[in-house]
Amino acid sequence: MKRRKFLKALGIGAAAVTMAPDVLAKVPDMFNINREAPATAGDKKLRLSFYPYELQLRHTFTVAEYSRTTTPDVQVEIEYDGIKGYGEASMPQYLGESVASVTAFLKKVDLSRFTDPFQMEDIMAYLDTIQPKCMPGKAAVDIALHDVIGKLLGAPWYKIWGFNKTKCPSTTFTIGMDKPEVVVEKTRECAGKFNILKVKLGGGHDKEMIQSVRKVTNVPLTVDVNQGWTDRQFAIDMIHWLKEQGVVMVEQPLPKNRIDDIAWITEHSPLPIFADEMMQGLSDVLPMKGVVNGINIKLMKCGGMHDAYKMYVMARSLGMRVMVGCMTETSCAVSAAAQLSPVTDFADLDGNLLIKNDLFEGMIVNKGKITLPDRPGIGLKKL
Amino acid sequence: MKRRKFLKALGIGAAAVTMAPDVLAKVPDMFNINREAPATAGDKKLRLSFYPYELQLRHTFTVAEYSRTTTPDVQVEIEYDGIKGYGEASMPQYLGESVASVTAFLKKVDLSRFTDPFQMEDIMAYLDTIQPKCMPGKAAVDIALHDVIGKLLGAPWYKIWGFNKTKCPSTTFTIGMDKPEVVVEKTRECAGKFNILKVKLGGGHDKEMIQSVRKVTNVPLTVDVNQGWTDRQFAIDMIHWLKEQGVVMVEQPLPKNRIDDIAWITEHSPLPIFADEMMQGLSDVLPMKGVVNGINIKLMKCGGMHDAYKMYVMARSLGMRVMVGCMTETSCAVSAAAQLSPVTDFADLDGNLLIKNDLFEGMIVNKGKITLPDRPGIGLKKL
Repeated sequence: MKRRKFLKALGIGAAAVTMAPDVLAKVPDMFNINREAPATAGDKKLRLSFYPYELQLRHTFTVAEYSRTTTPDVQVEIEYDGIKGYGEASMPQYLGESVASVTAFLKKVDLSRFTDPFQMEDIMAYLDTIQPKCMPGKAAVDIALHDVIGKLLGAPWYKIWGFNKTKCPSTTFTIGMDKPEVVVEKTRECAGKFNILKVKLGGGHDKEMIQSVRKVTNVPLTVDVNQGWTDRQFAIDMIHWLKEQGVVMVEQPLPKNRIDDIAWITEHSPLPIFADEMMQGLSDVLPMKGVVNGINIKLMKCGGMHDAYKMYVMARSLGMRVMVGCMTETSCAVSAAAQLSPVTDFADLDGNLLIKNDLFEGMIVNKGKITLPDRPGIGLKKL
Repeated sequence: MKRRKFLKALGIGAAAVTMAPDVLAKVPDMFNINREAPATAGDKKLRLSFYPYELQLRHTFTVAEYSRTTTPDVQVEIEYDGIKGYGEASMPQYLGESVASVTAFLKKVDLSRFTDPFQMEDIMAYLDTIQPKCMPGKAAVDIALHDVIGKLLGAPWYKIWGFNKTKCPSTTFTIGMDKPEVVVEKTRECAGKFNILKVKLGGGHDKEMIQSVRKVTNVPLTVDVNQGWTDRQFAIDMIHWLKEQGVVMVEQPLPKNRIDDIAWITEHSPLPIFADEMMQGLSDVLPMKGVVNGINIKLMKCGGMHDAYKMYVMARSLGMRVMVGCMTETSCAVSAAAQLSPVTDFADLDGNLLIKNDLFEGMIVNKGKITLPDRPGIGLKKL
């Protein structure tokens, strides 16, 4: 569908959506944020623009609950003083958001009231006053702001956060649920490129899934059950079997409301248990202590990089492990999430590899390892 | 005592201590951290130097346990690529550190192994391998590194952290324990300059102390008991009386090991209770949940700005209040702590005002309010 027709179908008038020009704003090599602001705000206002962008998947994506071939997405740009920052909202079905709900949120965001992109705490608090949720919309604004700030500082965020980029982990690459021969084929396609794979389980053919992958490769595996198991003893028995198959971590074994049973599984499991669906934002970290071993931090669920960093601080302080994940996204949101990866135990940042129509070059996977660009902000180069 | 004789007395040879030149290294207005490092490390190594510096107090400082007229201190400088960052270790008696122990620690620190000052997580982890404690020594290195990093980025830390400096609170100014007429006189000296005062209690003349202050001013007061009370019912009765006198917060009412009694006081107190002596570093924040309403973050106890920011994140995530405090320090460490103040409920940053021989201009108190300079890093100008 052409963009104009797509917008019309959504009931969004052309005037409401500022189209983003295709040229990457020139980022000055040197920039001093401490210079005096001019008397009139002029170009020192924060300007937000956004447009829907449907992500085309390379393969049909199947988890325990559903299948899909596209992911709705909204691209965001924030301009400030000649610098352009990129952000993104990705809305997989289960988040309960849509292009309509996210663009409705973004239309309410008036960043022109802020003249300083650095006032992240105030800006994020302002977004919360507009709407309590719409986390992908908030994440998109947060990511674009981080990109602007990083460009103003002339530094990528992993550096600003004090991380060592050589410590980036290998990313997992996801093998979705499918017939054995398709799983074998998909595993073959990616086996040489990744050092660790993530296998989706919970669809009733778990052993078959693992065995199909194991026909092709002996790399370590993580498994994501996506709440697909129901019985805790079944879970423990399966986890013991999985451990023998070289699985090293289990995500979200039971439905998210089964807290006590998940805590029981964590207590008895020989593998670390990570929370995903039961993990949204910063306020969910503390309740996970004693329930799981680690948390999966996703920008689209926690509202962006600002809170993602705080979740990392919180989880580590609670003695928990940390993983960073993503949705199906362009390299924009994936590269934003990747800034946190040097301090994580696992990274599941393959979202950009799953789509055919990426818009950026950013974080790349080199010999299976996440490799962060030295470019400032979130490190993007527009394709 | 002259510096050379002072060093000799400490058994520190002149060769072991690199004297810092008096000129402030010129900070380039514009700087791009992403330029290529030269093949030889050359000036891209981190160079640490330090020297003892005895702080001369304007007034004798009296708390529940002791009195003093000087505070031992060590000034630290880190040079990197023509930029100089300033740090400081202040060692009040109760911390259990001395000029000898801090300089012994600093002599073991070999920063030349790092070529990137941004790798804060690695550098702080390295410091922990040298010695588990010596928090003032670690704070000094951490502060100097933050100063270097902020200067490389061309931004002050409150900005990098995303804070709004117009939200800096008024600082408390401390009225130490003394005879009523002296307390009246000291209060008179400062009454017009501050919007909130902190009164030291726990010396057995608490009501007299408050009444002496109240003869002069009606500004809100905080009280710091410094573990000076022993009975929890006495504490509650006193806190009720204090509330009637316009006291708004109570620090460390009982000895730090009396956790259950302090939790009981917090439960029954009409005023918020803050932890100070029972609060050291990041790992102490979680155990304070349910025990006190808030924590006092001090750089010399938590090891610097990196962990101080994490403690703020942790405390807020736990629903706790945050205060930032200091030791008797020059404007160096006080200005470093002040970077956090925009997000605190209380700030007790009067340490630099208590000494006669400050070395820097940094954070200033304007009409009682903490006022942060726009200068990058921790915002110092050498006097």
